[in-house]
Amino acid sequence: MTAIPESQGDFTLPGEAGYEDLTLNLARKWGADTIRDSDGSRISPEITRFGYDIYSTLCLVRSINEWAKKNPTRLQQNYLMSFPVVAERASLTIDPLNRFFREQFVLNTRDDPKRWWQVFDRTTGEEVPKKQWSFDPKRKTVTISQAKRWHRYTVNFLVFRIWEEISMYNQITNGWADKEEHKPAVDPIYPDTRKAILRFLDQWLVEHPETTVVRFTSMFYNFTWFWGDDPNLRYPYNDWGDYAMTVSPRSLGLFKKEFGYALCSEDFVNGGLYNNTHNAPSRRYRDYMDFMHRFVVDFGRQCVERVRRAGKKAFVFYDDHWIGVEPYSERFADFGFDGLIKCVFNAFEVRKCAHAEGVKTHELRLHPYLFPTGLKGEPTFQEGGNPTLDAKNFWIDARRGILRAPIDRIGLGGRLSLLEPFPDFCDYIKKLADEFRLLKSFHAGDRPYTAPFKVGVLTSWGKLRSWICSGHFAHGVELNELIESLAGMPVDVEFFSFDDLREKGVPRGVKVVLNAGRAGSAWSGGPEWEDPEVVEILSGWVARGGGFFGVGEPSALEGRPGMRFQMAPVLGLDRERGERFGHARYAYRTEKSHFITGDLPDGPDFKRHVDGIYLLDGETRVLAELAGEPAVTARSVKKGRSVYFSGFRFNPENTRLLLRALYWAAGREDAYAAWSSSNVRTDCAWFPKKRKLVVINNDAEPHQTTVTLGDGKRSRKVSLDGHGIAIIDL
Amino acid sequence: MTAIPESQGDFTLPGEAGYEDLTLNLARKWGADTIRDSDGSRISPEITRFGYDIYSTLCLVRSINEWAKKNPTRLQQNYLMSFPVVAERASLTIDPLNRFFREQFVLNTRDDPKRWWQVFDRTTGEEVPKKQWSFDPKRKTVTISQAKRWHRYTVNFLVFRIWEEISMYNQITNGWADKEEHKPAVDPIYPDTRKAILRFLDQWLVEHPETTVVRFTSMFYNFTWFWGDDPNLRYPYNDWGDYAMTVSPRSLGLFKKEFGYALCSEDFVNGGLYNNTHNAPSRRYRDYMDFMHRFVVDFGRQCVERVRRAGKKAFVFYDDHWIGVEPYSERFADFGFDGLIKCVFNAFEVRKCAHAEGVKTHELRLHPYLFPTGLKGEPTFQEGGNPTLDAKNFWIDARRGILRAPIDRIGLGGRLSLLEPFPDFCDYIKKLADEFRLLKSFHAGDRPYTAPFKVGVLTSWGKLRSWICSGHFAHGVELNELIESLAGMPVDVEFFSFDDLREKGVPRGVKVVLNAGRAGSAWSGGPEWEDPEVVEILSGWVARGGGFFGVGEPSALEGRPGMRFQMAPVLGLDRERGERFGHARYAYRTEKSHFITGDLPDGPDFKRHVDGIYLLDGETRVLAELAGEPAVTARSVKKGRSVYFSGFRFNPENTRLLLRALYWAAGREDAYAAWSSSNVRTDCAWFPKKRKLVVINNDAEPHQTTVTLGDGKRSRKVSLDGHGIAIIDL
Repeated sequence: MTAIPESQGDFTLPGEAGYEDLTLNLARKWGADTIRDSDGSRISPEITRFGYDIYSTLCLVRSINEWAKKNPTRLQQNYLMSFPVVAERASLTIDPLNRFFREQFVLNTRDDPKRWWQVFDRTTGEEVPKKQWSFDPKRKTVTISQAKRWHRYTVNFLVFRIWEEISMYNQITNGWADKEEHKPAVDPIYPDTRKAILRFLDQWLVEHPETTVVRFTSMFYNFTWFWGDDPNLRYPYNDWGDYAMTVSPRSLGLFKKEFGYALCSEDFVNGGLYNNTHNAPSRRYRDYMDFMHRFVVDFGRQCVERVRRAGKKAFVFYDDHWIGVEPYSERFADFGFDGLIKCVFNAFEVRKCAHAEGVKTHELRLHPYLFPTGLKGEPTFQEGGNPTLDAKNFWIDARRGILRAPIDRIGLGGRLSLLEPFPDFCDYIKKLADEFRLLKSFHAGDRPYTAPFKVGVLTSWGKLRSWICSGHFAHGVELNELIESLAGMPVDVEFFSFDDLREKGVPRGVKVVLNAGRAGSAWSGGPEWEDPEVVEILSGWVARGGGFFGVGEPSALEGRPGMRFQMAPVLGLDRERGERFGHARYAYRTEKSHFITGDLPDGPDFKRHVDGIYLLDGETRVLAELAGEPAVTARSVKKGRSVYFSGFRFNPENTRLLLRALYWAAGREDAYAAWSSSNVRTDCAWFPKKRKLVVINNDAEPHQTTVTLGDGKRSRKVSLDGHGIAIIDL
Repeated sequence: MTAIPESQGDFTLPGEAGYEDLTLNLARKWGADTIRDSDGSRISPEITRFGYDIYSTLCLVRSINEWAKKNPTRLQQNYLMSFPVVAERASLTIDPLNRFFREQFVLNTRDDPKRWWQVFDRTTGEEVPKKQWSFDPKRKTVTISQAKRWHRYTVNFLVFRIWEEISMYNQITNGWADKEEHKPAVDPIYPDTRKAILRFLDQWLVEHPETTVVRFTSMFYNFTWFWGDDPNLRYPYNDWGDYAMTVSPRSLGLFKKEFGYALCSEDFVNGGLYNNTHNAPSRRYRDYMDFMHRFVVDFGRQCVERVRRAGKKAFVFYDDHWIGVEPYSERFADFGFDGLIKCVFNAFEVRKCAHAEGVKTHELRLHPYLFPTGLKGEPTFQEGGNPTLDAKNFWIDARRGILRAPIDRIGLGGRLSLLEPFPDFCDYIKKLADEFRLLKSFHAGDRPYTAPFKVGVLTSWGKLRSWICSGHFAHGVELNELIESLAGMPVDVEFFSFDDLREKGVPRGVKVVLNAGRAGSAWSGGPEWEDPEVVEILSGWVARGGGFFGVGEPSALEGRPGMRFQMAPVLGLDRERGERFGHARYAYRTEKSHFITGDLPDGPDFKRHVDGIYLLDGETRVLAELAGEPAVTARSVKKGRSVYFSGFRFNPENTRLLLRALYWAAGREDAYAAWSSSNVRTDCAWFPKKRKLVVINNDAEPHQTTVTLGDGKRSRKVSLDGHGIAIIDL
């Protein structure tokens, strides 16, 4: 067993003006090489004089407020759908902004509503002809004539946003709203806006000679966040990946010029669903994303170039205004960023950061954030808080990912001054930083052992949303639960899309294709499954020896009577939702003993699972049941195999169930034992060049485990403290 | 309190040859006026000499077996869909009957397969052109050329049925299959079959002078029951109302002549779903039902006429071959039956029988059936059985319905000889028969008190399936659970269809419209909700003071993004199934105290409920939650009201919740107290002309209750034994 040596570097510390001694002491203690500013804390000239690298946060689109005031037509826009209103007589008047937050939105009446807006009869699903409605610019209402009684109508309309959402949230939450100026976000789609932004940036660079790294947060367009005025419905809609807040008449005009066809408001409004990342995207919307993404990269690169010309580095913080900054897009490298910073709660976020190509530095901002109150309103750095325990728990969640993939730096954010009453926390962060730097050193020039096959995750988004479902952990979304399990496994994972599948087949090296999610979701694939070519390619691949792994409603298509999963013949099962009430289900016995359930003889707890699963025949082996229906099944299909889970939730037991099921689906049970750990609450990684075996305890309680070595026979017993780690030289 | 007097009559007793004394003794003890034969037991001449009325069971279509053997093309037919087969190469051969029970089905190869069959690529959903497949009459297989690899294919094909299902079931279950001749059912759609049947009937009538009532079981076509050859999938499909087993080239030819368009195999096969009663029917299938129904009534009337000409009565047993014998069809009276006999487990089956028009006598066959073993394989009339307790429990379930609606007769079936070791049972049946006759006497010339409003149940089937979902209690089907509750309530119920609604609006007297079921079901309405007129009529009716009551997925339409319940504005809520992951839900507080939940402060147990319910605004009041989501809601809508339940299960507590919710939805909470019983396990009925108050205990344990009298103020305390009844003169 190797002790963790003390070390230095690769650590970003939030400095705080007025606490120069504390900043310097903690920088030394934690081995920091960089000092950053944070929301609510500045760095003083005293601190910059210490000689550390300096990160400075910069959000360009809300930085030119004086210019924005003079140019209100240059504010960012979006489409909204009015809340539905029922017609009680032939004339119906709708105030489109009713129930929306009027401090966020104002109507765009400068661009002709008759041209840009649409009115829908949502009872029939049909658009109301333009001549049957009119906009009253004085009252700011839409009046529909010849409305049909008792039908519900909605207006799709354009708004300007007059208060940028991140600062709005911070100001309102912290009670600063009355004290500080409301900043809107300007829209760089206009040439004059871009000019104003670049002018500001150039001046900023001159005025910040001490800054060594510009930390963009992030580029131009925020994730979508529509606010309401009713305290019971404060956030009617919010999505991490929706391009809704990039839309304007200018963007639509440029799109049409480039793609040769016009988009309309309903392409973005979509019956009020908007284009939520979890839902399967339309081809039209994907075209728009592609168009807007290129725009963001083009202008982003110009900004980055100026930063570098000023002799500084450009890092991007992957949050907030991150639309168009997808680290797994083909164009991400074109920005020219030097580093990517990701705040992390979970292991999948570590992997999301670690595998991004086109940047040299991958940095994690750890939790807890140095704020008095945590994200759920719980006390953190104040009376009643236990920030050390919080830090330990956050660390063991993230560490599972750090064990598998290299990360270059870590850091914290917030107000350093809050740490004074918590010396215990400061000691723990030193330990954590040393642990991180040791793990980083193992990754250097080495790769930890992984299974002799790759897992391919098939979704509508493919590589673009690798290790991402939408924002932070979307609990209950099967794929997000799965990727959190995968993030800590000794298994290489590749994300690919249905387009990739059609063009190139199953990616090379992939032995298990995972398709997971509810019908109609971007994760399961929705209408992609209407294409029989998808079924043909995958079925043939399985027949030749591949493994198809379905979770929830894999390959589900809605609207076909009697058949729901397009891969049903491969899975050997399908799902009904009541329409087969007259059909008996194939009777089966649950197998008590199987490789897949070897560590989970009593069956899984998926928390939520898909009901109505029925077997096609006796070839499908049921390994576990939930609520009297098949929950875990396995099937041999020609030379290949299939596995089905009726749901998934991330926990240690299910993670182990998944790992074993992947080995089985790949037909490689023989290879499972090598570098496996008997206790499901522990993980191990073998760094072959360094000859280091790392064993981690993912639990707050102490645990013992037996690690089987690479020959699959010999083993080593290991005892671990709660949150502990063991380094073994072999 | 009135004691139950001893009485005579209105009771049908199963006689048994060889047990003449027992038959006579029990007939006297129970006050029987009629003796019947049963499956497995005959009546001897000694018995017929006692002078009782004699019921003789008759199933015409399986009675002319010698003729059937000579005329194999006159056997009944149906379409089947082959089990799907995946193509592994361009040529795919399918044995259509594979996995079906070959003692039930043989291929109909006499009618050209190329004309009558269809082959489908179920991966694309498209029909395979006729020229791309062929039938090999020698091997009895279909070969598809140019099959697409890995697509799954099915054949829709015609079969003759060579073993009638009811006798097949009885013979196989009782181990008689090898001993007795296999009887098929002949198809009266052919004129020569009808002639043979009538010839048989005439002769039978001559040969059975002792018979006073012919008990048809039932007419010509059995409910649909497809058997498989795999013991793990013995009954691939079974539906109480599907007309599948009436189909033949001749019926399709006659249909086309009459309706002017042709039906095809897929109209019946429907992707393997067939036309299950629980699923919303297509217009084409309803046309076919109408056609076949008229045929059954026409030929049935001819049979009934012969019975009456022979000086006998004709009763119909509503089970088995009951297709076309729907007691709530417009044509049912045209049969000319004298009586309708319904076997009952539950109260809704009592109501189903009681309200049938066009017959004079409404008779119930009670349970337990006099057989050694019960329907679930449990011992009944043998060692280990407790038939008296069984009889009591069956009786209290049925009695709830008998309290509300008049029934003319009751009876038993089976083998009387089994009763000898159970004198206790014989005593109880005497008591039960007296209790029945007393309740019948109260209904005579009187009607028990009912609420001052009617409940209208809106379904795709309307009046045709009044008090019916499909066969016996379809547990878990919301509407079936609801009608079992309704069957014992002092509330008049009317069933109506979407066509009725469009033609005549909400029926007169109806103050609450109930729409219940999953999306796509016949009970919720499925595609009927695409018609905006339905929404318009109902919304306007509610606005003028009506009550709309939705359960499960009322008014649900699938496939519209973002909007599922067409009546969402009236209900004030809608359902999402994951597609609104980015949408916040309207925040609410559950109201602890409300008229509707007055007897159920801790909320309901629906066993299964619909998830994803979200409120549209703050006007919807949440009265109970399940799993953190609204489960019981109430809303005022202009002058009307709406109520929503996210599920329903029949039990005493939920029945009371439903009753209160109906009064609230009708705006008649003021009238609720009159003739209400405080204890949810008891019911009461007030017969105003007879001035009798009847209080029943629906539970095996003793109960006390307080009945509020008609003025809504005065009350009466009542104590009841387990299964007990109290008669109070007022």
